[in-house]
Amino acid sequence: MTGVAGGLVPAVDPGGGEPLVGILTGLFLLFVAAKAGEEVARRLGQPAVVGELLGGFLVGPYALGLVTPGESAVVLAEIGVVVLLFAVGLEVRVDDLLAVGRAATITAISAMVLPIVFGVGLGLLIGESPSSAAFIGLALAATSIGITSRVLGDMGVLDRTFARIILAAAVIDDVLALIAIGIVSGVTSGDLSASTLLLAVAAVGLVALGFAAARRARGLRREVFTWPLFADTPLVPAFILMFGTALLAAVFGLAAIIGAFVAGLIVAETEARDELEHEIRPLQQIFTPFFFAVTGAQLDLGALGDPGILALAIGLAVIGIITKTAGGLIGAQSVGRWGALTVGFGMVPRGEVGIVVANLGLVGGLLSEGTFSAVLVAVVATTIVAPYLLQFAVPRADAEAAGEPVRKPATSG
Amino acid sequence: MTGVAGGLVPAVDPGGGEPLVGILTGLFLLFVAAKAGEEVARRLGQPAVVGELLGGFLVGPYALGLVTPGESAVVLAEIGVVVLLFAVGLEVRVDDLLAVGRAATITAISAMVLPIVFGVGLGLLIGESPSSAAFIGLALAATSIGITSRVLGDMGVLDRTFARIILAAAVIDDVLALIAIGIVSGVTSGDLSASTLLLAVAAVGLVALGFAAARRARGLRREVFTWPLFADTPLVPAFILMFGTALLAAVFGLAAIIGAFVAGLIVAETEARDELEHEIRPLQQIFTPFFFAVTGAQLDLGALGDPGILALAIGLAVIGIITKTAGGLIGAQSVGRWGALTVGFGMVPRGEVGIVVANLGLVGGLLSEGTFSAVLVAVVATTIVAPYLLQFAVPRADAEAAGEPVRKPATSG
Repeated sequence: MTGVAGGLVPAVDPGGGEPLVGILTGLFLLFVAAKAGEEVARRLGQPAVVGELLGGFLVGPYALGLVTPGESAVVLAEIGVVVLLFAVGLEVRVDDLLAVGRAATITAISAMVLPIVFGVGLGLLIGESPSSAAFIGLALAATSIGITSRVLGDMGVLDRTFARIILAAAVIDDVLALIAIGIVSGVTSGDLSASTLLLAVAAVGLVALGFAAARRARGLRREVFTWPLFADTPLVPAFILMFGTALLAAVFGLAAIIGAFVAGLIVAETEARDELEHEIRPLQQIFTPFFFAVTGAQLDLGALGDPGILALAIGLAVIGIITKTAGGLIGAQSVGRWGALTVGFGMVPRGEVGIVVANLGLVGGLLSEGTFSAVLVAVVATTIVAPYLLQFAVPRADAEAAGEPVRKPATSG
Repeated sequence: MTGVAGGLVPAVDPGGGEPLVGILTGLFLLFVAAKAGEEVARRLGQPAVVGELLGGFLVGPYALGLVTPGESAVVLAEIGVVVLLFAVGLEVRVDDLLAVGRAATITAISAMVLPIVFGVGLGLLIGESPSSAAFIGLALAATSIGITSRVLGDMGVLDRTFARIILAAAVIDDVLALIAIGIVSGVTSGDLSASTLLLAVAAVGLVALGFAAARRARGLRREVFTWPLFADTPLVPAFILMFGTALLAAVFGLAAIIGAFVAGLIVAETEARDELEHEIRPLQQIFTPFFFAVTGAQLDLGALGDPGILALAIGLAVIGIITKTAGGLIGAQSVGRWGALTVGFGMVPRGEVGIVVANLGLVGGLLSEGTFSAVLVAVVATTIVAPYLLQFAVPRADAEAAGEPVRKPATSG
């Protein structure tokens, strides 16, 4: 069987270390596990992202032990989440962010402040450090625009007023959370004192710069991307912009995904938008599963055997759901009682952003493995529960808007 | 400036070693260098692949020393060449391979045997070992169907008879070369004696199995790929098939790219073909430049300062051009004198396949750095010269086919 290890004919020199065939087999297993997990999850009516996480968990070191993600897996995962946030930015117009109504703004702020306050409170209550508690609060604060959009799209209600409020609020929430993530992670990883203000200014400045660039990019012709001879389509220049902006954000002490998101916002204003939304999809399909699989492989469910951690997970999940719902009820009363509830429910799923934050805390050494697992379980719980909550509230909000009795599901458009 | 290194907020744990920001910056530089190199090359009327190679060379350790490709770059490069060969397979129909006319077959065999004979001869003449000489011959034997197709497409002559012969012969040539690569690399990396026959049988068997699978796959509905719920499009299942088949080929002692090529052949017969050709393009655009950049980064042009190596490079380039041209003249007389010359010229570019073979030799320790550089320069030379040769011959072949005086360029379609 020496042929197995010696048989892979690498086109390039792996340069020592683990044989290339082993690395590639590990990557293959992670990818297949993520997709198999997604398949099972979707057949059971669960969100795809949960399946990808559990697939990675299953083949990872805390379950079957088939794969321990190494440098390549981590790099593919990082590119995956960068591509994901770029794609999210691509779905958002600066106008939708700047011309938000009162409802979206109040909803976004409420649905961000409440989870942070209660999350940090719970963290401090159980004796975590302020930094650690901040990460717990942040992980509960961010709404996943990706998951929210997908659920609303699947239900065919993206054109409703409550859906527009959810989207606008989720975007504001996302930007606030990204800035907060950048600040908190910059503060906790760098020096805590002098650079705090600078980092905050840099964070706001970079996003403001990105917004300004996006406004100036409005209506830019496709040729802005395709003037190089190597660019038959806008993809490669946009990929370079995305990658470069992500690294620029990193140099400024922000998260790389902030840069990618802003790059998406900029590109979204140009005439290349539709074409790029189409071209980025294959990259998302191939790169992004690595992020969820690698993240899942870090999930130590055994830690939940500890009653304290299990209780924390439950507590965080409950706080996560109630505070977001309250945010919607506070901010979106203008669309009625059921409409406001729908907005709140729409803010519930945390998805990848919550996972990113939890990871930041883990990587920065601010969250213990146990607390990380508790946060991850809580994040996953909000993602699982949101589609059911929306299924319950959306028809009632629709009926309410149509002036019909709320008990009877409406079919009006 | 501690913020620079500490500032990247990785979404996943890099797990020690080089910081993630450094790895990602290196990858970014390689990608940008490849694209900048392509841009310069194309503005100068040179083939894109040459620019990508030189871009990688420029930032690599033998020139500016900005990047030394590590594990991640090598993995991205390997996935890149696997995706490339999958895409090539996707362009080819089994029918075109099986129903080849006499001209294509004789051309393919002549244009493969002659470079091997003369390449091996030159190798032995300069005192290389038989294995090493075999790699030199192989590197000169394979025709790059990708480059050939692109040049013919750019000239708008893909519908001509000589173009069909070139394409069919190049495909046969490619398959023969891939089998030969698999056998030679298997033999030279494993035990040399007993397993030789087994490996040859496995190589032919796997390709035959792939062909049989492709024939059985004919007309398979799109749903064969999209039945999983995770598969909104055929891309992810096809990617899994490609990746899995590449690893299967590796397990059988063949090159991973053979598996990818066969996977492409299979998918090409199904109804998902057109959609996949479209979906694979973004992956090719992002992954494949890493292959050429990483390969270029291994090119030690300093070795050409050695008069012996320089002479070898020139000798290999001359042999490479003359033997392929002779192959066309021998096999394709049926389309006239200029037509046959065009066929021969069309077989000249070696491109990525020649580079892959040279790399195999380098990785396997069979080619010295100096000989590797000489082979690479010769391969690059054939790629640079081919478009000019075709520019010269194609209008004359067209005129000849139209019965016009050969001196006057024809415009007939």
